[in-house]
Amino acid sequence: MAAGWKGAHVTSAGRKQDEGERYRSILETAARLICERGYEGTSMQEIAAACRMTKAGLYHHVQNKEQLLFAIMNYGMDVFEERVLSKVQDIAEPVERLRTCMRLNIELVTRGWSKEVTIILHEHATLTGEVRAFIDARKKRYVRFLEESFSEAVRLGRIRSVQPTVAAFAFLGMVLWIYKWYQPDGKLTDEQIADGMVDLLFTGLVPPLMAAGSPEGAPVLALAPLSASGEKR
Amino acid sequence: MAAGWKGAHVTSAGRKQDEGERYRSILETAARLICERGYEGTSMQEIAAACRMTKAGLYHHVQNKEQLLFAIMNYGMDVFEERVLSKVQDIAEPVERLRTCMRLNIELVTRGWSKEVTIILHEHATLTGEVRAFIDARKKRYVRFLEESFSEAVRLGRIRSVQPTVAAFAFLGMVLWIYKWYQPDGKLTDEQIADGMVDLLFTGLVPPLMAAGSPEGAPVLALAPLSASGEKR
Repeated sequence: MAAGWKGAHVTSAGRKQDEGERYRSILETAARLICERGYEGTSMQEIAAACRMTKAGLYHHVQNKEQLLFAIMNYGMDVFEERVLSKVQDIAEPVERLRTCMRLNIELVTRGWSKEVTIILHEHATLTGEVRAFIDARKKRYVRFLEESFSEAVRLGRIRSVQPTVAAFAFLGMVLWIYKWYQPDGKLTDEQIADGMVDLLFTGLVPPLMAAGSPEGAPVLALAPLSASGEKR
Repeated sequence: MAAGWKGAHVTSAGRKQDEGERYRSILETAARLICERGYEGTSMQEIAAACRMTKAGLYHHVQNKEQLLFAIMNYGMDVFEERVLSKVQDIAEPVERLRTCMRLNIELVTRGWSKEVTIILHEHATLTGEVRAFIDARKKRYVRFLEESFSEAVRLGRIRSVQPTVAAFAFLGMVLWIYKWYQPDGKLTDEQIADGMVDLLFTGLVPPLMAAGSPEGAPVLALAPLSASGEKR
């Protein structure tokens, strides 16, 4: 939670809060322009104009275009940590932790902020060097959190024995791909998507005692052992 | 399957085949440059140089930069349809169709072509108008195929009653997010990822009658279904 706007936001003084909102609005506007025209194709002059500021006014908030891009990504990570990670990391039961995490992260993608912040956070490869490494490290912390939660759930016998990295990236792919296809006025509500995704990952597609193999619908049952840890072989 | 290189590729004459390979190599090189420098930041001159061609030579193959971007996306869709969709669309049993489809699509992402073609196919929003609509329609055909396969599987009682659009995009997210994190020299092989993802989606995380509630670890026998083919879940 390192970005400037948050520091301003948490103070109680109205003026500081306004500055935080202003900064946030600059980042969202810049994100939209960069997504529309490409990073190379967008000038600081155009960003200032879209924010209804002078170029000097914009430079009061950000040093240069690369720092602006970095600030957009950090802003994305700040909001993610505030609205998702910090809300779930203390949930003791790992499956409940993961389910709630998926739901909150889907909500963030579908209604948390401008879609363009998400696009820049996940698609923009223009950053290099230390700033790139800094953002990558923040993202990696989330991957680790998911891997550890899946590992813990396996250890406690709460889920089948799955490879935690595969599970973490399956979770992330399901959640983050949503910004590519979700339409707020589409046939599915964000609630339906969140319910459906959590249900798919945690319950899977095949019902426990289904009659899948018997076309007449007669259940075919077999005895299968569960290991001591609860993992079915 | 509309792109030029394929037409050339399928003829038996060596020269035509070479031209197809040449065209394909131009598209992959251009994709790499565009990913590195951005679409706006890459000139046709630079693409020609990277292909070890003159600019005139490059214009022999493509009309302009936008047409080149369109060609890269069509190439991506051609290869996808050839190596994934055409191989699975005639599989009669819908769950088998979906499982094989997921496996082949993951293989395409992990080793099918240059990663940059995937990035351009899924991240590049520069195309507009008719060409954009054309690519979107090709992508949509895949989504429909998945939705219909999930619907059919539900109808036949092969899977639980899930919302087919959510299932289709969960499938796509799991598969396509892989290009963002997969490293050929990483700790997971592409086989492990394919096995793990198919297993996660089709079996889910929670074992049918799990012993999660027995912390003492006493082995528990559960009823598990066998399909007609004898494949144990």
